[in-house]
Amino acid sequence: MAAVSAASMAALNTSFAGKKIAAAKKVSARVTTRALKPVRAAVAAPADVSTETVNDCVNTIRFLAIDAINKSNSGHPGLPMGCAPMGYVIYREAMTHNPKDHTWFNRDRFVLSAGHGCMLQYSLMHLTGYPSVSNDDLKNFRQWDSVTPGHPENFITNGIEVTTGPLGMGICNAVGLAAAEKHLAARFNKPDCTVVDHYTYAIMGDGCNMEGMSGEGASLAAHWELGKLIAFYDDNHISIDGHTDISFTEDVCKRYEAYGWHVQHVEDGNTDLDAIRKAIDAAKKDPRPSLIKVTTLIGYGSPNKSNSHDVHGAPLGADETKATRENLDWKYGEFEVPEAVQSYMDCSTKGAEAQAAWEKTYAEYKKKYPEDHAELDSIITGKLPEGWADALPSFTPEDAGVATRIHSQTMLNALGSAIPGFVGGSADLAPSNMTLMKQFGDFQKDTAAERNIRYGVREHGMGAIANAIALHSPGFKSYCATFFIFSDYMRSAMRIAALSGAPTLFVMTHDSIGVGEDGPTHQPIEHLASFRAMPGMLMMRPADGNETAGAYKIGVEQTDRPTTFALSRQVVPNLPGTSKEGVAMGAYVVQGPAAGEDCDCVLIGTGTELELACKAGAELGDKARVVSMPCWELFEEQSDEYKESIFPKDCKAIVSIEAGSTFGWSKYAHKSIGRDDFGASAPAGILYKEFGITTEAMVAAAKSLM
Amino acid sequence: MAAVSAASMAALNTSFAGKKIAAAKKVSARVTTRALKPVRAAVAAPADVSTETVNDCVNTIRFLAIDAINKSNSGHPGLPMGCAPMGYVIYREAMTHNPKDHTWFNRDRFVLSAGHGCMLQYSLMHLTGYPSVSNDDLKNFRQWDSVTPGHPENFITNGIEVTTGPLGMGICNAVGLAAAEKHLAARFNKPDCTVVDHYTYAIMGDGCNMEGMSGEGASLAAHWELGKLIAFYDDNHISIDGHTDISFTEDVCKRYEAYGWHVQHVEDGNTDLDAIRKAIDAAKKDPRPSLIKVTTLIGYGSPNKSNSHDVHGAPLGADETKATRENLDWKYGEFEVPEAVQSYMDCSTKGAEAQAAWEKTYAEYKKKYPEDHAELDSIITGKLPEGWADALPSFTPEDAGVATRIHSQTMLNALGSAIPGFVGGSADLAPSNMTLMKQFGDFQKDTAAERNIRYGVREHGMGAIANAIALHSPGFKSYCATFFIFSDYMRSAMRIAALSGAPTLFVMTHDSIGVGEDGPTHQPIEHLASFRAMPGMLMMRPADGNETAGAYKIGVEQTDRPTTFALSRQVVPNLPGTSKEGVAMGAYVVQGPAAGEDCDCVLIGTGTELELACKAGAELGDKARVVSMPCWELFEEQSDEYKESIFPKDCKAIVSIEAGSTFGWSKYAHKSIGRDDFGASAPAGILYKEFGITTEAMVAAAKSLM
Repeated sequence: MAAVSAASMAALNTSFAGKKIAAAKKVSARVTTRALKPVRAAVAAPADVSTETVNDCVNTIRFLAIDAINKSNSGHPGLPMGCAPMGYVIYREAMTHNPKDHTWFNRDRFVLSAGHGCMLQYSLMHLTGYPSVSNDDLKNFRQWDSVTPGHPENFITNGIEVTTGPLGMGICNAVGLAAAEKHLAARFNKPDCTVVDHYTYAIMGDGCNMEGMSGEGASLAAHWELGKLIAFYDDNHISIDGHTDISFTEDVCKRYEAYGWHVQHVEDGNTDLDAIRKAIDAAKKDPRPSLIKVTTLIGYGSPNKSNSHDVHGAPLGADETKATRENLDWKYGEFEVPEAVQSYMDCSTKGAEAQAAWEKTYAEYKKKYPEDHAELDSIITGKLPEGWADALPSFTPEDAGVATRIHSQTMLNALGSAIPGFVGGSADLAPSNMTLMKQFGDFQKDTAAERNIRYGVREHGMGAIANAIALHSPGFKSYCATFFIFSDYMRSAMRIAALSGAPTLFVMTHDSIGVGEDGPTHQPIEHLASFRAMPGMLMMRPADGNETAGAYKIGVEQTDRPTTFALSRQVVPNLPGTSKEGVAMGAYVVQGPAAGEDCDCVLIGTGTELELACKAGAELGDKARVVSMPCWELFEEQSDEYKESIFPKDCKAIVSIEAGSTFGWSKYAHKSIGRDDFGASAPAGILYKEFGITTEAMVAAAKSLM
Repeated sequence: MAAVSAASMAALNTSFAGKKIAAAKKVSARVTTRALKPVRAAVAAPADVSTETVNDCVNTIRFLAIDAINKSNSGHPGLPMGCAPMGYVIYREAMTHNPKDHTWFNRDRFVLSAGHGCMLQYSLMHLTGYPSVSNDDLKNFRQWDSVTPGHPENFITNGIEVTTGPLGMGICNAVGLAAAEKHLAARFNKPDCTVVDHYTYAIMGDGCNMEGMSGEGASLAAHWELGKLIAFYDDNHISIDGHTDISFTEDVCKRYEAYGWHVQHVEDGNTDLDAIRKAIDAAKKDPRPSLIKVTTLIGYGSPNKSNSHDVHGAPLGADETKATRENLDWKYGEFEVPEAVQSYMDCSTKGAEAQAAWEKTYAEYKKKYPEDHAELDSIITGKLPEGWADALPSFTPEDAGVATRIHSQTMLNALGSAIPGFVGGSADLAPSNMTLMKQFGDFQKDTAAERNIRYGVREHGMGAIANAIALHSPGFKSYCATFFIFSDYMRSAMRIAALSGAPTLFVMTHDSIGVGEDGPTHQPIEHLASFRAMPGMLMMRPADGNETAGAYKIGVEQTDRPTTFALSRQVVPNLPGTSKEGVAMGAYVVQGPAAGEDCDCVLIGTGTELELACKAGAELGDKARVVSMPCWELFEEQSDEYKESIFPKDCKAIVSIEAGSTFGWSKYAHKSIGRDDFGASAPAGILYKEFGITTEAMVAAAKSLM
C-alpha cells in the first residue's frame, strides 16, 4: 500500500511559504479500549493512486472554491481552503455514496454544519460526480436561479441532505440523521440481513461549538450512543471577530468527553491525511459518537490572508489568488480540474456498486421478511399504508369534551399504529404535552427500535433533530413537542423546517392565556401571529376533536412543509358544526348561514375560542354566521369564490375572537377581540374575563358594526 | 461556635421516615489551590442560634411553600422542599441584602433560574423581611392581581431581580449581573475605597443545565472569570418526564470544569448545612465562577411523593401534607411562622447596617473621586448626563449615503462617550454589525473596565446577559447585536426583555433580502411582523441617518421596555424629509401633502424602502403623501387626530412597501408590497427586482386604487 504519510504530504507542500502553521495544541488522541463493534471497510490510504494526485485533489477542492468565490465576488473561502484535506478524505475515501442516485436510502450522510463553507461541499460534489453540481454551476455560485446558493440548501441542490448556515443547527441535524439510522437499524436489521447501515459525517466550526444548541444535540448523541456519528471540528482559532481567544477559551474536547463522546485530535489538518484516516477508523471502532478535532489553518495556502478573519468571509481577490497559486505551486487555470483528479475523484462507479449490492440484499430481505420489508419500504419510499387516515376518529357533541392536547394524544397514538415511520417525543413535557405513544417504549441506546423520543429540556436541539429525522427518509413522520411559548427557544429550527421543506410536526400545547397560573412567562400571545407570518409553515389551531383529527390528517399528508399545532391546556366541548373536511379549507362555516348564503355578521373563532364565537352567534340570531378558522394558510390557498362565500366583501360586521394578539386579523375582521399585552398569573377563567375575551365582548363588537 | 454539623442536622431529622435519601454520588469536592482573592466575611454556622431554630427555619420555608401551593391548588412544591436548606443558607447567612431597600445598589443579587420553584424565593423573602411579600401575599399565591405570581417577576415583586421561568435564562441573567458587577468594580473601585462589591447567587436545576443557552452563559462566565458568581445546581435527578436517566446522563460537573469553572459537590443537600456553608466559602476564595452541585431529594419530607415527578408541579394535597407534617414533626399551623424563626430570619437590621456602611463609603468616594462618582452615580440612579442626546448627529441629503448599520455605529460611538453606562457588543459579528465603540477596549477578565463586550456566537445567552446588565442598575444602557435573522435564536430573551421591562437595545443588522448572496437562511422575512406582534417591544426600522439617530434617542430614553433596531446591510441615501422628531411619532410625512392636508394617496415606506416610496410619490405627483413609518408601536400611542391626519379614513389608496412579509400591513394599507415567501441567494438588487419590490410596483398599486 502506498501510504500517504504525514511526512510525504508535508514534502509535497514544501513550496508552501506562507504563514506559519498554527501551533497545534498538545492534546493527544483519546482512543478508548471499549468493546468494538463490527464496522465496514476501514479508510485506508488508497493503493491505486499517487500521492501527487491525492495532493492535486486537495488543491483542486481549494481552487474551485477560490475561483467560484472570486467570480461571484461573495462567499467564504477560508473554510474550504482549510478543510479541503478532511473534505477529500470524507467524500472520496470514507463515505459510501452514489453520486448518480442521491436518494439511495443506505448512503452515508454528510452535513456541513459550518454552512458558510458550502463551496467545500459543492467542490466535493462536483468532483465526486454529482450531476447536480456541474462546473458551470460552480461558476454560477450565489447567483439568481443557480443550484449553488450561498449556503447548502437541500431543496435546491440534489445531494445536500439538510439546509445549514445558522450555526449549531447542522450538527444537531447530523445527530437526527444518526438517530434515524440507529432506530431503523435496531428495528429492521436481522442477524442474516443488514439493510440499514450508514454513517453520518459532519463538519462543524468554532461557531457551531459556541452555540448552545450544539451542546443540546451533543448531549443527546452521547446519551443515545450514536456510534455511527462522526463529527469533525474544524479548529482554526478564527471567527468573525478575530481570534477565538477573545470569546472562546473553554476546553471543547473535555466538554465533549463530559457529554460522553469519543474524542480525538488531529494536530495537523492541513497536510496529515493519514492522521485523518486513522481518526475515522478509530471513530468507527468506538461505540460512542466521535468528535475529531482537526486543527487547521483557515485559508490554508494564502500567503497573506490565511490564519486571519480576512479570509473567512470575503473573496481572496485577484492578487492574493495569484500569490496562493504560486504558493501552492498550482499550475491549472480557473475552474480547471486536472484530468487525473477528475478521474480519481469520481465515486460513481464504486457508489453504483455499493448501491447494487445493497439492492440485492434488500431484495433478499423482502423475500425473507415481507412484513418488516413492508414497514421499512413505507419509510424508505414515503408511501403511507392505505387507509392510514381512517385511524383518526370522529367526534360528536355527545362525546366528552377534553383539551385539544388530549385529542392530540389520541391522534398521535392512532397514527403511531397506522404509520410505520411515525416517531417523536417531547422536550421533557410528555405528561403535559400528552405526546407518549402508549404502545411503544422509549428510544434509548439499548432500545433504539422504540419510537418515543425523550428529548430532555432541549427545544432548539429537538427541533433540528426532528427536522433531520423527517428528512432522513420520506416515510418518517417526525413530531416534537413543547409548550407553545417555548417555540421561542426553537424558532430557528422551525423556520429551517419551513424553508427546507421538512414536514416536521410541531406539537405545541398550552397555547394561550388558558395556561392560567403559570403566568406570562408561560402564556403565548404573539405566537400564532408570528407563525402565520412565517412563510412555508402551516399554523393549525384546532377547536375540538374533529378539528384536531383534521389538522393531523393534513399535517401527515404534507411532504414538503411543516405543521405547527397549537393545542389547549383547558377542556373544550366537541362542537356540532366542526369537521375534518372543514379544516382542510382553512376556514369554514360551523353555525348560521352556510357559505354563500346571506348573513348580517360573521363571527370568526379559532381553537378554544370557537366555542365563544358559537355562543355569540346563538345570541345574535339566525343571520349570524360563525366561522372556524383553524389555518390561515390553507384558507389563503382556496379560490377567490370560496373566500368570498365565507367572508363576503359587503358584510361590514366581521369580528374575530382569539386568545392571543389581534395582530394580522385586520386582514379578515373589522373588529378583533384578543389580548395585545402580556398575560398574567391567575386561574384561566379569571384571565379570560379580566382581559375581555368573552362572548359578551363579541356580541357587543358585532352589534356595534351592524 | 455552635457548629451545625451534618450529624446534628441529621439527628434533628430522625423523625424522617419517608423514602430513602437518593444515593449521593461519590464525586468529591473539587477545590483548587489557585491564588486567593480577598473576600468578605465567610459564611459560618451562626453562633447566636440553636440548631433547632435553624432546622425550624428550613422547615418553615418548606411548609410556607406547601401551604401556599395547596391553597392556590397550583404550583411546584418539589423544589422549595428540596432546596430549603440551600435557600436558607443563601438568604439568611450568605447574602448581604437589605430587605427594606431592595434597590440598594451594592446588594448581593439572587436569581432563581429554576423559576417554577418561586415559592422558595417568596418564602425566603417573606421570612427575611421584604415588605413586598407579606403572609397575606403568600396566601394569594398565583391569584389575580397578587404580587406572588406563578414565576418570579421583577416587574411585579420588589426584591426579585429578573424574570425567570423559561429554563436556562436565569443562569445567563446571573452571568450578566456578575459581569456588570465585575465591570463596575474594575472601573470604579480604588485602592482606598471599594464601592462596588457584591456576589451573585443562583439556583438552577437539571432543566437549566439541559438547555443549551446555559452552556453559552457558563462558557462566557469562565472566559470572563466571574469569580463572584456562585451557582447552585439542584441535582435532584427528577424532571417532568421522570428520572433524568431517560435523557440526561452527561457529567455536568466535568462539563463546567471544561468551561473553566470551579466545581464542588455537596452530597447531602437535604440536611448538611455545614457542607453548603463550606462550599460557599471555598467558592468565594476561588477566582473562577463556582458551580456547587447540591444533591437533594425533590419534595424532601413528603413520605409518598418525594423523589418523584408527582411532587414537581402539583400541590401535595391535604393527605400528603398531613403525612409530611408528621414526617418532619412539624407542629405549626398553615402559614404559621414560629416566633423564633420570624425573629431570627429577619435580615432587616443587618441589611440596614450593611447599607449604611456602604453609604458612608460612597459619601467618602464622592469627596475623593468626584468625577468617577458622577459617572458611577449616573449608572446607579439612571440619571443620564444633561444633553446626552446632543451627541446624536443630524444629516442632510448632501451627506454621503451609507447603510443604516453604519449610521448605527456612529450613534453607538457617540452614545458610548456621552453615557457612562453605555456598554455592549455583538455575537461574533462586530465587523458586520458595526458595533465596536472605537474609544474603548474589550471587556475581558483582565480588562473588565472596558465596555465592548465580545459575546461569541451565543445569541440566546447574549440576550439574557444583556437584559441582566440592563436590570443590574438603571443607568446601564446595554446593547447587543447580531444579524436580524438570528433574532430567531434569542427570541425568548427578547420577549423576556419586553415582559420584564429591561430596556435592552437589540441591534439587528442585515434586516431583509438586502442581505443578498448569503441567501434565505440569512434573510429575514417575517421578523418585523413577529416583533411588531410582540407586546412591550419597540420595533424600529429607520430609513437613514436622521431616523437612526432618532431611533437611538428613543431607545435610550426607555426605562422599562426594550427596543429592536432593524438596520440595513445596503447603502441608503439621506432623504430630505426625515427627522429625529418624526421617528418619535412612529409614522410621519416626509414628502407630499403634510399631515391633515388633502391627498389622493398615501405611500408608506420603512427603512431601506422609504427611498422607493419617495420615488413612487414623485412619480404620482403633488397629491401623493409619502409616510415614513419606522415604529408602529409609537404610532399607535399617538392621538386619534394625529393618526387620522396621517392615514385619512376617506383615502382609499394607501399602499405600503417593505422588504419583508406583508403580514399585518392590512391594518394601515389597502395594498402592500413586500415578500411573503422566503428570499434567495443572489445579489440584493436582483432580488428586489425579481420579487417585485420596486417603485414601479408601488406606483401601479396606488394607481389601481385611485
